[in-house]
Amino acid sequence: MKILLINPNISTSVTDLIKAEALRVASPGVEIGAMTSPFGVAYIETRAEATVGAYAVLEMIARHHHGYDAVIVAAYGDPGVLAAKEMMDKPVIGLTEATLAQAHLMGGRFSLVGISQRIGVWYRETVASYGFSDRFISYRGLEQQFSDVGLVQQERGEMLHQMCMTCVQEDQADSIILCGAPLAGLARAIEQRVPVPLIDGVGSAVRMAEALVRGPRFARSAGSYAPSPKKMSVGLSSALSAYLGMQQPS
Amino acid sequence: MKILLINPNISTSVTDLIKAEALRVASPGVEIGAMTSPFGVAYIETRAEATVGAYAVLEMIARHHHGYDAVIVAAYGDPGVLAAKEMMDKPVIGLTEATLAQAHLMGGRFSLVGISQRIGVWYRETVASYGFSDRFISYRGLEQQFSDVGLVQQERGEMLHQMCMTCVQEDQADSIILCGAPLAGLARAIEQRVPVPLIDGVGSAVRMAEALVRGPRFARSAGSYAPSPKKMSVGLSSALSAYLGMQQPS
Amino acid sequence: MKILLINPNISTSVTDLIKAEALRVASPGVEIGAMTSPFGVAYIETRAEATVGAYAVLEMIARHHHGYDAVIVAAYGDPGVLAAKEMMDKPVIGLTEATLAQAHLMGGRFSLVGISQRIGVWYRETVASYGFSDRFISYRGLEQQFSDVGLVQQERGEMLHQMCMTCVQEDQADSIILCGAPLAGLARAIEQRVPVPLIDGVGSAVRMAEALVRGPRFARSAGSYAPSPKKMSVGLSSALSAYLGMQQPS
Amino acid sequence: MKILLINPNISTSVTDLIKAEALRVASPGVEIGAMTSPFGVAYIETRAEATVGAYAVLEMIARHHHGYDAVIVAAYGDPGVLAAKEMMDKPVIGLTEATLAQAHLMGGRFSLVGISQRIGVWYRETVASYGFSDRFISYRGLEQQFSDVGLVQQERGEMLHQMCMTCVQEDQADSIILCGAPLAGLARAIEQRVPVPLIDGVGSAVRMAEALVRGPRFARSAGSYAPSPKKMSVGLSSALSAYLGMQQPS
Amino acid sequence: MKILLINPNISTSVTDLIKAEALRVASPGVEIGAMTSPFGVAYIETRAEATVGAYAVLEMIARHHHGYDAVIVAAYGDPGVLAAKEMMDKPVIGLTEATLAQAHLMGGRFSLVGISQRIGVWYRETVASYGFSDRFISYRGLEQQFSDVGLVQQERGEMLHQMCMTCVQEDQADSIILCGAPLAGLARAIEQRVPVPLIDGVGSAVRMAEALVRGPRFARSAGSYAPSPKKMSVGLSSALSAYLGMQQPS
Amino acid sequence: MKILLINPNISTSVTDLIKAEALRVASPGVEIGAMTSPFGVAYIETRAEATVGAYAVLEMIARHHHGYDAVIVAAYGDPGVLAAKEMMDKPVIGLTEATLAQAHLMGGRFSLVGISQRIGVWYRETVASYGFSDRFISYRGLEQQFSDVGLVQQERGEMLHQMCMTCVQEDQADSIILCGAPLAGLARAIEQRVPVPLIDGVGSAVRMAEALVRGPRFARSAGSYAPSPKKMSVGLSSALSAYLGMQQPS
Repeated sequence: MKILLINPNISTSVTDLIKAEALRVASPGVEIGAMTSPFGVAYIETRAEATVGAYAVLEMIARHHHGYDAVIVAAYGDPGVLAAKEMMDKPVIGLTEATLAQAHLMGGRFSLVGISQRIGVWYRETVASYGFSDRFISYRGLEQQFSDVGLVQQERGEMLHQMCMTCVQEDQADSIILCGAPLAGLARAIEQRVPVPLIDGVGSAVRMAEALVRGPRFARSAGSYAPSPKKMSVGLSSALSAYLGMQQPS
Repeated sequence: MKILLINPNISTSVTDLIKAEALRVASPGVEIGAMTSPFGVAYIETRAEATVGAYAVLEMIARHHHGYDAVIVAAYGDPGVLAAKEMMDKPVIGLTEATLAQAHLMGGRFSLVGISQRIGVWYRETVASYGFSDRFISYRGLEQQFSDVGLVQQERGEMLHQMCMTCVQEDQADSIILCGAPLAGLARAIEQRVPVPLIDGVGSAVRMAEALVRGPRFARSAGSYAPSPKKMSVGLSSALSAYLGMQQPS
Repeated sequence: MKILLINPNISTSVTDLIKAEALRVASPGVEIGAMTSPFGVAYIETRAEATVGAYAVLEMIARHHHGYDAVIVAAYGDPGVLAAKEMMDKPVIGLTEATLAQAHLMGGRFSLVGISQRIGVWYRETVASYGFSDRFISYRGLEQQFSDVGLVQQERGEMLHQMCMTCVQEDQADSIILCGAPLAGLARAIEQRVPVPLIDGVGSAVRMAEALVRGPRFARSAGSYAPSPKKMSVGLSSALSAYLGMQQPS
Repeated sequence: MKILLINPNISTSVTDLIKAEALRVASPGVEIGAMTSPFGVAYIETRAEATVGAYAVLEMIARHHHGYDAVIVAAYGDPGVLAAKEMMDKPVIGLTEATLAQAHLMGGRFSLVGISQRIGVWYRETVASYGFSDRFISYRGLEQQFSDVGLVQQERGEMLHQMCMTCVQEDQADSIILCGAPLAGLARAIEQRVPVPLIDGVGSAVRMAEALVRGPRFARSAGSYAPSPKKMSVGLSSALSAYLGMQQPS
Repeated sequence: MKILLINPNISTSVTDLIKAEALRVASPGVEIGAMTSPFGVAYIETRAEATVGAYAVLEMIARHHHGYDAVIVAAYGDPGVLAAKEMMDKPVIGLTEATLAQAHLMGGRFSLVGISQRIGVWYRETVASYGFSDRFISYRGLEQQFSDVGLVQQERGEMLHQMCMTCVQEDQADSIILCGAPLAGLARAIEQRVPVPLIDGVGSAVRMAEALVRGPRFARSAGSYAPSPKKMSVGLSSALSAYLGMQQPS
Repeated sequence: MKILLINPNISTSVTDLIKAEALRVASPGVEIGAMTSPFGVAYIETRAEATVGAYAVLEMIARHHHGYDAVIVAAYGDPGVLAAKEMMDKPVIGLTEATLAQAHLMGGRFSLVGISQRIGVWYRETVASYGFSDRFISYRGLEQQFSDVGLVQQERGEMLHQMCMTCVQEDQADSIILCGAPLAGLARAIEQRVPVPLIDGVGSAVRMAEALVRGPRFARSAGSYAPSPKKMSVGLSSALSAYLGMQQPS
C-alpha cells in the first residue's frame, strides 16, 4: 500500500514533520510519499489562504496521485478535499475528516487545540460543514506568535499542554483534537499528562486511509461524488484538465 | 458608483448576458464592468469546478478591483466570495448571498430552480453554509442537456417555467430563486405567469451591492474577516501576493 | 419613491430620531413619511408589549400605506411585520430583518447590542424565528435605567461603545447590530472606534427598502404570504377589515 | 377549580363546541367559563389574523381572568399565549402547547390534521417556535371549503378520518394531533378507527391546565416571563393598561 | 386510579422519599404503589448504570404493572421509559419527560440542577434525545460527595438553593428543574426563595400521569410504539418474555 | 491483535455469518472471537428489544473481554455500546458508529437499507443520537417477512438490491449503508451492480477497530467516558459488578 501526503503549504519543514509522523504510524509495508506545494503560503489560517491551498491540492493530486492507493491532504481544514474526492476513484482524506471520525468512535464531545486564534474560525467552519457542530465544544488557540511554524510544538509545547488541560477542566471535553499539520506528533509527547484521549491529525489520517484502502470501492458513477460531467476548459494544467474539462479546441 | 461583475467561468456568452442584465437593473449613474475568467471551465457544476473558480475569483479581484466600489461574483454557489471578503475593504457579494437576502426579506421559504440536476448539490451545500437550510424547501433542475450554457434560458424557458409552477403547487414555495448566471433575466420574462415572487441572481446582487456601498464601512481590523496575517508566500501572482503574503526573499 | 416609517410605540421623540436618520440615509429623491402609534407603550421590551405593537402596526399600515412604495416597521423585534407582508403587495420590512440581511452580506457571525437586559430575549427570539440562530453570537444590553428612551444613546453612548468592544474582544463578533429604534444613528457616531462593522437598524431598513422597491414584484396569489382568504369579521376598523374580512352583515 | 376558555375568534358556534368538549373532559368539580372575542374574524388562518387574535386574547384575559385559576386560549396556533403568560401569575395555556406536551409524553413523532391547507403554515411555524420541529412529521389539511367553521367536523368527518389514516400509513406518525378548536371532540368520534393515539386540542388543554393549577407556583419576579417593567402607555383599555403600562398623565 | 412508582435503583431510602412526595401530590382517591429494583446500583450516574437500570425497569414493569393505570419510572434520565412505552397499553412516564412537559407549558428556557457533576451528562443527553436542546440553558451539579443519596437534599440544601440562584442570575433561566428522585420535594422547601418556578420530578410525573390516564387511549397497533413483533426469545424472565418473545421451544 | 465480536441476540446463524465476514475482512494476523448472547431475542427491532440487548452486551463484555484488544457489538443500533465504552479502556465499537465513520469519510449523504420497516425507526434514532441526521437521507426496509433472520440476504437479495437502486435514483444517496448483522457480506455480492459505494457493518467495524487499536490510548480518567464512580450494587453478576459497583456488604 502506498499513501501520498500532500502539504498544501510551502513549508518544507512541516512536510518533513508530517512525513516523519506518518512513517511512525503507518503499518508495516505501507509506503509514504510526501510533497510540498509549489505555490501558496507558509501555513493556512484564513478562508482566502484555504482557497489557494484548495487549488494547489487539486493540481498536486491530478499530477502526482498515480501509483498511490490513497491521498492525505495534510492541512487541518481540509482544503480541496471534497473536491478531490469527486476527481479520484481512490480515497482522498483530510486531517479534519479523519480526526472527526476518530473522535466520533471514541465517544462524546471534543475540543480543538490549535496554533493561533484566527485559525480557529476556519476549523470551526470546517467542523460545521461536516455536520459535527453538536459534538464540538470549544476551540482553544495560541495567542502569541511563533518564530517558524515547523517549530511551534517545540516552542509552545507547555502552553499547548496547558490548553488541553483547560479543555478537560473547564470545557468538559471527552477527547481533544490537536489540530494542524504543525502539531503532528505532539499527542504522543504529552498524552501521559492529559486524562482524556488526544487525537493527532496525521496519525488519524494514516490509520483511516489504510482502513479505507482495504474497504469498499471508491469509484462511483452516480451521486454528487461521481466525476464532473466533461465540459470545455481553458487555461488549466494538462494534469487538471484531464479531470475537469475538455481542452478548448484552438 | 462602479460595480465589477466577475464571471468565474470562461463563457463569454454568459458574461454578456449578466452584463446586459446588470445594466438593466442598475440605478442611474451606476457603471458596470464585467470580466470573464482567463482560466476554468464552461460553467461550474461540481465541488472541483467550484474550487478552480474560487481561485480564479481571488486572482481576478486582486488584479482588477481597483477603481470599483463593489464586486459581484456572478456564479450561483459563490465561489471564493467569503475568501474575497477577507481581502477587500469594500463589498464583495455572491449571487447566492444576494438572493438569500432577497428571499429572506420577502418572507417565508423558497425553492431553487437551476440548469442541471448535478449542480443542485453544490447550491444546496452553499445555502446550508449560510445557515438557510430551514428556509430552503426544494431544488428542481433541468434533466436534459443544453447546447450552450449561454442559450439555456432560450432553449429551456418553458420547462423552467413549468418547474417554477411545480415549486409553487407541490413544494408550497413562498418565493423561487432562479439560480445561476445563465438564467439572468429569466425572472422578468416569466414572472407574470408565476403566482409567487421570482428572484433573479444578478438583479438581486446589483441591488444589494448598491445598498452595501451606501451602507456602513466594510474595512475591519478584527474578527474573522479582517485581512489575513501576513506570511511568506511563493508562486502567487504579484496581485494576489499583495493581499496574501510576503514574497519569499530570494 | 416614498417610504413610510411606522413607530409602533407612542414615543414621538423616537419617531423624530428615526425620521432624521432615515432622511440622512435615503437616496436623493426618496421621500420619507413617519408616524407614531396612537396607542401602545413607550417602547417595546416584552412579548406582551410586542403583541400590542403588532396590532398597532396592522392598523397603521392598513390606514396609511396608500401612496407609499414601501413600509418600514421601526421597532427592533419586527412586531406585525410578517403579518403585514400578507396584507400588502409592496415591501413591508422590519429593522431585525433588514439588519440580518446586512449582517449576512457582510459575512460571519454577529452580536446584538441593545438598551436593556430584558429586551434581549425578545430580540433573540425574533432572530431565531428568522432562522439566524447559528450566526447569532451574543446579546449585550444596558443594565441601568435611562431617563427617556429618546435620550438613551446620548446618556449611555460610552457604555454602549464599551459593550461593542466586548462583543469584539470576548465574543469574536464579525459585525455588531445596534438594536432598536432609539439607537438610530449611533453607529455613525462611534464606528471609527470599533474595529468591525456596526449595523444600524433604520439605515439598513431604508437601504434595503429601496432595493426591494426596485426589485421583483411583491404581489402574490399563492404561498403563505398571499392575502388571507376573506372571512366574516366583527369589530375591526374599516381600514383593517378591508384586508382581513368581510363586514358581518347587520 | 375554575378554568376560563377564551375563543379569540368571533364564532359563537365554535365557542359552544369547545365549551361542550371542555365540560365533558373536565374533572368533577372543575367549572368551565367560556367567552367569544368581541372583535376579530370567523377563524384564524393566517399570520395577520393571528395578530388580531393575539391582541384580542390580551384584552379578554386582562378583563375577565379574575376568579379563574387558569386560562385556555382555544385556537390552535396559540395567539397571544406567550404574551399572556408574562401578564398572569396563573397558568395560561394554548391548544398547541397542550397537544405538544401530550404528544411528547406519548412518545415519538406526530402529524397534524387541520381544516385548511393555508392554516397549516401557521401551525407549522407555531410548532417550530416551541422547538418541536424534529418531532413534527407532516401537516395534512382539508382542500375544500366548508359552509360554517362550526360544522366542519360534521361535514368533513370522513375525509378527516381518511387524512389520519394517511398520516399513519404514509408518514409513519406515532400519534396525530387534531388541530383547531373546530375539531374539538372529533378524536373521541373516530379513535376506534385509527391505530395510533389521536390528540384533541381542547381535551389536552383542559387536562394540562388542571395539572398546572395543582403544580408549582406560576408567579415569577425574574426571567423573561416576569411582568413587563412598567412604562408609559396611551390608548390601551384600562384593563390592559393595568398590566402593561402607566396611564400617561394628562 | 392507581399509579405505580418504580425506582430503578436499589436505594430503599429513595423509594421512601419519592413515595412520600407522590402521596403529597396525588389527587384525592389516587393510590400510589412503589417498588425498589431488586438489582442495580445505589443511584444512576452514567450510561452504563442507566443501561442496567433500563433493563430493571422492563423487568419490574412486566412483572408488576397489573392493576395499575399508569407507571412512573422514578429516575431522572428515564431509563427504559421509551422501551416500556412499546410494551404497555397504558401510560409509562419518566421524570425527565414529565419535567420537560411542565417546563414547556410554563414557557421559555430552563436550567437543570442535580446531585453530581458526572450525572449532568446523562441528563443533558436525555434532554437532547427528546428534542429539547434549544430550550435547555445549563446544568449545575454538586461538586462534593454526600454520605447517602437519600440524605442529599438535607445535607446540601443550601448549596442546591445557591445553585438555583446562579441559574437565575447568570444563566437567565425562566424555570429550574430539580433533577433526580433524591431531590423529590426540595422544590416545595425552597420555592419561596427562588424568583422563578421550580419544577419537581416526582410531582410533575404524578400530575402528568393523572392527566394521561384521563386522556386518549394509549394502545396502538401501528407506528413505532406498537408492541414488538413477536420473535423467539431465550433466557428472559417469563414476565418479560410475555411481552418480548415467544419462548424458544425446547 | 485479537478482536471480539459480540452478537447481542440469540441467533447463532447470525453469529456464524458475522464471524465469517469478519475473518474475510480482517488484516493478516488479526484473530477474531465471536459469541452469541445467552439471553435475548432472535434479532433486535424495537427499543424494548434493544434495552435487553444492551444489558446483554454489558454482561458479555464484562465477562469475556479479557485478552482481546477491541470489542465489536454486532447489531446495527449499537445496543450498550456507549455504556460499554465507559467500562473499558480499550475500543468498543458498534456497527452504526463504524458505518457512519465510513460514510463520513466517503463524503456526502447516505441512505440506509435494512431488513424490516419497523427496525428503521431504531436505526434512525441511533443515527440521530450520534449527530448525523443532516447527512441521513432515507431508510428503506423490507416489507415482507423472512423465514429466518440468518437467511434474509439469500432470500431477499434481489429485493435488497432494488432498494439500493431506489436510494440512488430517487433519494440521491452518495453512499448506502447495508444495516444489520444479518446483511453482513451482502455489499460484496452486489456492489458491482450499484453505482455508489455500499457500506457493510461488520466490514467497517473490523477495519475501524483495527485502526483504533493502533491509535491513541482509550483509557481516561476524566470526561463522561471515565469509569463510573464506584457505588453500592446488588444483584449484578460478579463480572459486571467489578465494573459498576461495590458488592453490598452482607
